[in-house]
Amino acid sequence: MNQRPKSKSPPSSHHHQQQPYSNVKTLTLASKMARKSLIKPTLATVFLLLSCYALFITFLSPTDPLFDSREKLSNDLNFPGNSPPVKVYMYDLPRKFTYGVIESYAKARGGGDVKELKYPGNQHSAEWYLFDDLNREDRSGSPVIRVLDPELADLFYVPFFSSLSLVANPIRPGSVGVVGDEAPVYSDEEMQEGLIEWLEEQVYWKRKNGWDHVIICQDPNALYKVVDKVKNGVLLVSDFGRLGRDQASLVKDVILPYSHRIRTFDGDVGVQSRKSLLFFMGNRYRKEGGKIRDLLFQLLEKEKDVIIKHGAQSRESRREASQGMHTSKFCLHPAGDTPSACRLFDAIVSLCVPVIISDYIELPFEDVIDYRKIAVFVDSTSAVKPGYLIKLLRRVSTERILEFQLELKKVKRYFEYEDPNGTVNEIWRQVSLKLPLIKLMINRDKRLVKRDLPEPDCSCLCSNQSRIHNTL
Amino acid sequence: MNQRPKSKSPPSSHHHQQQPYSNVKTLTLASKMARKSLIKPTLATVFLLLSCYALFITFLSPTDPLFDSREKLSNDLNFPGNSPPVKVYMYDLPRKFTYGVIESYAKARGGGDVKELKYPGNQHSAEWYLFDDLNREDRSGSPVIRVLDPELADLFYVPFFSSLSLVANPIRPGSVGVVGDEAPVYSDEEMQEGLIEWLEEQVYWKRKNGWDHVIICQDPNALYKVVDKVKNGVLLVSDFGRLGRDQASLVKDVILPYSHRIRTFDGDVGVQSRKSLLFFMGNRYRKEGGKIRDLLFQLLEKEKDVIIKHGAQSRESRREASQGMHTSKFCLHPAGDTPSACRLFDAIVSLCVPVIISDYIELPFEDVIDYRKIAVFVDSTSAVKPGYLIKLLRRVSTERILEFQLELKKVKRYFEYEDPNGTVNEIWRQVSLKLPLIKLMINRDKRLVKRDLPEPDCSCLCSNQSRIHNTL
Repeated sequence: MNQRPKSKSPPSSHHHQQQPYSNVKTLTLASKMARKSLIKPTLATVFLLLSCYALFITFLSPTDPLFDSREKLSNDLNFPGNSPPVKVYMYDLPRKFTYGVIESYAKARGGGDVKELKYPGNQHSAEWYLFDDLNREDRSGSPVIRVLDPELADLFYVPFFSSLSLVANPIRPGSVGVVGDEAPVYSDEEMQEGLIEWLEEQVYWKRKNGWDHVIICQDPNALYKVVDKVKNGVLLVSDFGRLGRDQASLVKDVILPYSHRIRTFDGDVGVQSRKSLLFFMGNRYRKEGGKIRDLLFQLLEKEKDVIIKHGAQSRESRREASQGMHTSKFCLHPAGDTPSACRLFDAIVSLCVPVIISDYIELPFEDVIDYRKIAVFVDSTSAVKPGYLIKLLRRVSTERILEFQLELKKVKRYFEYEDPNGTVNEIWRQVSLKLPLIKLMINRDKRLVKRDLPEPDCSCLCSNQSRIHNTL
Repeated sequence: MNQRPKSKSPPSSHHHQQQPYSNVKTLTLASKMARKSLIKPTLATVFLLLSCYALFITFLSPTDPLFDSREKLSNDLNFPGNSPPVKVYMYDLPRKFTYGVIESYAKARGGGDVKELKYPGNQHSAEWYLFDDLNREDRSGSPVIRVLDPELADLFYVPFFSSLSLVANPIRPGSVGVVGDEAPVYSDEEMQEGLIEWLEEQVYWKRKNGWDHVIICQDPNALYKVVDKVKNGVLLVSDFGRLGRDQASLVKDVILPYSHRIRTFDGDVGVQSRKSLLFFMGNRYRKEGGKIRDLLFQLLEKEKDVIIKHGAQSRESRREASQGMHTSKFCLHPAGDTPSACRLFDAIVSLCVPVIISDYIELPFEDVIDYRKIAVFVDSTSAVKPGYLIKLLRRVSTERILEFQLELKKVKRYFEYEDPNGTVNEIWRQVSLKLPLIKLMINRDKRLVKRDLPEPDCSCLCSNQSRIHNTL
């Protein structure tokens, strides 16, 4: 099967009769080539040989599924070429886990008419985009293939809207949880447990212990009650702030970007229209790593070309933040309750160079994006030293800022969920990359015999590089 | 760019003049097709159209680097399609690290004439096959591309013959280490240190802290003195028996098969000619996990259809082992000094179902090979219970054995280093799969700021499945 036609030397005889060709319509191309001069027969030969070669490569080469399908079926390996696209099966979950969450969200907010189901805009809407993407009729251009037969699937996607479910009921758990005198509107915890009950009845869930399942919990608190039961799967998360090291990792899981909440900046690179040095607008008071925010407010709020404001999520503050991010050179990204926040992605689409002060942040798609080229990282300890941060940023030349902006422009599409060549495709590509390790773990788990292990049986990739104070 | 020539309907006129074709040697193929009957012109048209299509696909389609190089250059991402083949640069090491090791090996054994450099046959010869493979002129069909310009490389291969170096000097370290009155023949430790010295001067080694380097140390003791200095790289190993968890893992590294040392069984599946139930030949006394061997000898040496023999490496014992493995249903694979040994791979190419008693074994290519289909796993504790193992194996039906053998036949090529579609290609494919994580670690390491970590910064994939006593 690896034989290829050997190239022959040109024919020794160049004599040929030209006229008769003109009637042979079936060989138009070749005859046209052969008609004009004496060297054309050689050209025609070359054409034919190339054609034969090309025919062979196109229709008979070993990568053609016609010829190696047996191989693929028997061994699931396409060797030595590239891997075939990963096949994803999306569960047809009971409606309450998908559209039902949108309905509950609307109802809890007094939305009477839920005929027009619209996923509400929010920073954790990847669950909507992925669901919507797999439901598209024309999925050409996607890095994964959706299959409707679970037997054909490499991976199983569980499209529960877990992040929206977390906030569907605006009344906090523990409080009364009723509207007027009615029963509790919605219980996210019940939904989480309901999902697990449903999953644990699925034959494909049991078959491989969940390793080949992809589960989205973009809000750091989504699925908090049951995450231990789905931890074998590929988790699509924002960060590992609420997850243990036995539950999630860079190796097993995929870090998603937040959906940016402010307008994309459509202008060109440049600093003329960016008069402020640094911009931040957001909640001044946060828990844990986010406590640094208040310290930064104290340090920065009196600097002249720095805009730093307390503000909550609202349409008006988003408008104001758009304005601020589009007219500043740098945008501050301090940790929130967990290391990640949507502000980083707002800054990126604003071409406002992010200044990341979040020591434990994990970043989306870091195999293809070198964040040092688009952002400045400063460690928390240094950042709260009086004068340190502002001095550092003032030293950055305009040329350097333009370089950052050019790079931001290049990678912007990775953070646009609505770009057909944007975030959604990249998430699926990242998920695809997990497949070989998933398969390895599945095969290995099933053959492992009883052993006495002094510690958990883990395969790790470790780093020991965290010595720098800032990346400028 | 995605336009393809539309297929046309066959020409309406089927008239043509046959005779003139016979002189046109330059169109032999087409003319032969056209000569014989009236429907041939249509066939010729189809051929031509297919040729055009094939030519287009082969030479002009969008996967041609001519057409998408800009994309690749600007962003290093081919999105949303598959990843392009990984580009490997092989270091041109000083000769002493490659051919020089072969010379030293020959000299230490009194080989006077080393003009004919031949890598000596041994179980750790992957280093030779990979070196030889990258040096091949025609590398078509390989999953990786060799590049001669390091600037273009994704990965850097360090082709030191570390396993041969370990045994080049037949005199054990610590003893005199001289031949006659001459100076010490060869020092592997000096070579290991020499390699590190050389590597640490390389700009590409320093640039990414070694993460993008591929280093072979197939013998579990190869590079033992310096492994800490190369641990960031992708290590090509037999097992993790001599490696710490911070040095090597399934996530970062690649498990290689040993080169089988006995003849491949070319016959078909079947049990007629396999009269013995179980075969083992090898060293009865080993260290650590290998202590189980003596216990198994005691249990099994009196069973009537079991052949279990003490034997050391020699041409004669290899012949005897071939004979034994080709005529037994099962072949025992107990742990050696480390969990792996070449015997497993001898059994596989013998279609003799391996019985693996090595609780901590790691297996090559486990993402694509489900070893439960080709081998029996028994935990050590159960295996040494009197009667347990032999009763287990006697219960296996002929049908089941034939199933095992059929699967063994299917995966055999993965263990044939000399098969053009065998082990070498699969090793490169496995190495290629590491690239995204490598890139992620490189990018992440460079932007990580100073942090106080309570424990090492590791990303892990953990298993908690080791409850079974055997896989039958």
